[in-house]
Amino acid sequence: MSKYFSNKYQSLVPYTPGEQPKDQKYNKLNTNESPFTPSPKAIEYMNEAAKNLQLYSDPDCTRLVNTACEYFGIEKDEILFTNGSDEILNFAFMAFCDKDHPAVFPDITYGFYPVFAEMNGIPYEEIPLEDDFSIDIEKYKGINKTIFIANPNAPTGIALSKGQIEEIVKSNDSVIVIDEAYVDFGAESVVELTKKYDNLLVTQTFSKSRSLAGARLGFGIGCKALIQDLNTIKYSTNPYNVNTVSMMAGVGALEDDKYMKENCKTVMANRVYTVMELERLGFEVLPSSSNFVFAKSNKIGGKELYLNLKEKGILIRHFEKDRLFDYNRITIGSLDQMKALIKAIEEEVL
Amino acid sequence: MSKYFSNKYQSLVPYTPGEQPKDQKYNKLNTNESPFTPSPKAIEYMNEAAKNLQLYSDPDCTRLVNTACEYFGIEKDEILFTNGSDEILNFAFMAFCDKDHPAVFPDITYGFYPVFAEMNGIPYEEIPLEDDFSIDIEKYKGINKTIFIANPNAPTGIALSKGQIEEIVKSNDSVIVIDEAYVDFGAESVVELTKKYDNLLVTQTFSKSRSLAGARLGFGIGCKALIQDLNTIKYSTNPYNVNTVSMMAGVGALEDDKYMKENCKTVMANRVYTVMELERLGFEVLPSSSNFVFAKSNKIGGKELYLNLKEKGILIRHFEKDRLFDYNRITIGSLDQMKALIKAIEEEVL
Repeated sequence: MSKYFSNKYQSLVPYTPGEQPKDQKYNKLNTNESPFTPSPKAIEYMNEAAKNLQLYSDPDCTRLVNTACEYFGIEKDEILFTNGSDEILNFAFMAFCDKDHPAVFPDITYGFYPVFAEMNGIPYEEIPLEDDFSIDIEKYKGINKTIFIANPNAPTGIALSKGQIEEIVKSNDSVIVIDEAYVDFGAESVVELTKKYDNLLVTQTFSKSRSLAGARLGFGIGCKALIQDLNTIKYSTNPYNVNTVSMMAGVGALEDDKYMKENCKTVMANRVYTVMELERLGFEVLPSSSNFVFAKSNKIGGKELYLNLKEKGILIRHFEKDRLFDYNRITIGSLDQMKALIKAIEEEVL
Repeated sequence: MSKYFSNKYQSLVPYTPGEQPKDQKYNKLNTNESPFTPSPKAIEYMNEAAKNLQLYSDPDCTRLVNTACEYFGIEKDEILFTNGSDEILNFAFMAFCDKDHPAVFPDITYGFYPVFAEMNGIPYEEIPLEDDFSIDIEKYKGINKTIFIANPNAPTGIALSKGQIEEIVKSNDSVIVIDEAYVDFGAESVVELTKKYDNLLVTQTFSKSRSLAGARLGFGIGCKALIQDLNTIKYSTNPYNVNTVSMMAGVGALEDDKYMKENCKTVMANRVYTVMELERLGFEVLPSSSNFVFAKSNKIGGKELYLNLKEKGILIRHFEKDRLFDYNRITIGSLDQMKALIKAIEEEVL
């Protein structure tokens, strides 16, 4: 730290991204990436866009917005694209929380939420998950605070239904942010509820189901007034926040929806295989609606399993937090990747 | 504005980017873009990168950092890449300014500085440029406030020398940010002074001389402690802020330095042509060390000229601010573009 660093940030503890080791090639099941390369259409559009990058990107993302509007059945002022969904989440913390409007989220969820809150000097409350790691929606009703819920939740993979989310949204006169990063792997999206409620913001990303984690493309959908607020933040920090190549990757990915849907089906099938195999090996696996499973063994500790698999060239994600310590979060990759994982785990527990 | 928008931001006036009209194809001399496409090497690397975007980008930008370290003769902890240089500038306002450390910059400079300050709730002071639009460095000496200077300055194009900047840096016990967005077109970079002074941060961009405006890639160079502070901000807002394609475009652009240098030479030659022609037509042109000129006519008002040229399909940039009202900022493009501009201006003033 320099002596010039503002007091405001001196005690900040930044977010720790999943490890991306460069020392060897791993069977990488630790950061919930897709096992599939991007849609050929996305690649084609990116290559075309790369040729004319001397021109600024379109700050309004016009072509991508038009494509997304058709895809989601929304108006152009109801969506905002950002540099990954982390950016739209940060914008939402900035725009809709402050000392008088604390943020609320589960105590076990995407680890970036408390960092966003700290970063922006926003008070926040964490509501403990139930014993089975589920969210009790009663605890979120009528509290009139700015609520952030990942649906499905991470790292549990457990989803709320559309009806449950609607109950939360309609019982609060405050902004409810539903982070649907993993929604395409078996949960219900609440995008269409943004037409009915002016306090609902839904965020999604192209990083998971659309195989574009490296392109950094996310977005938020909400009523025009909410999107206008988020645009005020965007145009006061980084108007050209989405580069032209990622923008065109997004257009290609949305146009090639069949490719995404097929890939999600495969991941969901591989999830069924993985859960069956893990259960056969004595694991307890939470019911997942996402491209990862959260599981603990009755024979080996979470950290030990993580370290032993790493030795064998397989990366999964372990969290130090108390209630999560016995578990590991395992990304669902290709069938070959999952078979290699199960084989390696068999060596540990049989 | 929604009723949920935080009080903090309700009076924010966002930055207005240069217009990017979609109604017709213009001779675009309004946003200081390069007339040259990106280096073939940058395009090749981007196409390669696009194939594997299902994986997250490297939050440490290792390969790009290594290339840049060799290029600039610095260590890997002395540089931070961002989503355009707007992001590193915003990070610098956040990290090094607060109520006790106000920001200081010229009253005429990059229009985003006051927006960054407002956005972050930072008090700021604007020091008026001299009558000839130059910066009097005496006014910046020993003030011990966080100083932001674009060098060359925009929209004037006038540069300070390395010696002048060193005088400012060494006379202050506060962070001095030198924004070198346009430095490659004839000004002196102060990157090497970052080895000598722990209060100097130099920012640059790939948007101008390296023909990558649409890729959104910028960076800051400073001593390790300053870069560490900026990393704390980055890892608390958007760890994956630079996407893989732009990262690899940056590697290609730095490796193909000859291409950049040739293009800058051409732009500088076209600037000589443009200045001579404008002076022949009765314009007063400020001495420019950048890829644009700032000029006023003795025959036609700044706004009128801007509007008339727009009618003819040529876009230049006009600013409403008092002292700038008679002037226009004209990007230096290809020789054909500049000839078309001069021809159109002749029709206005001869």
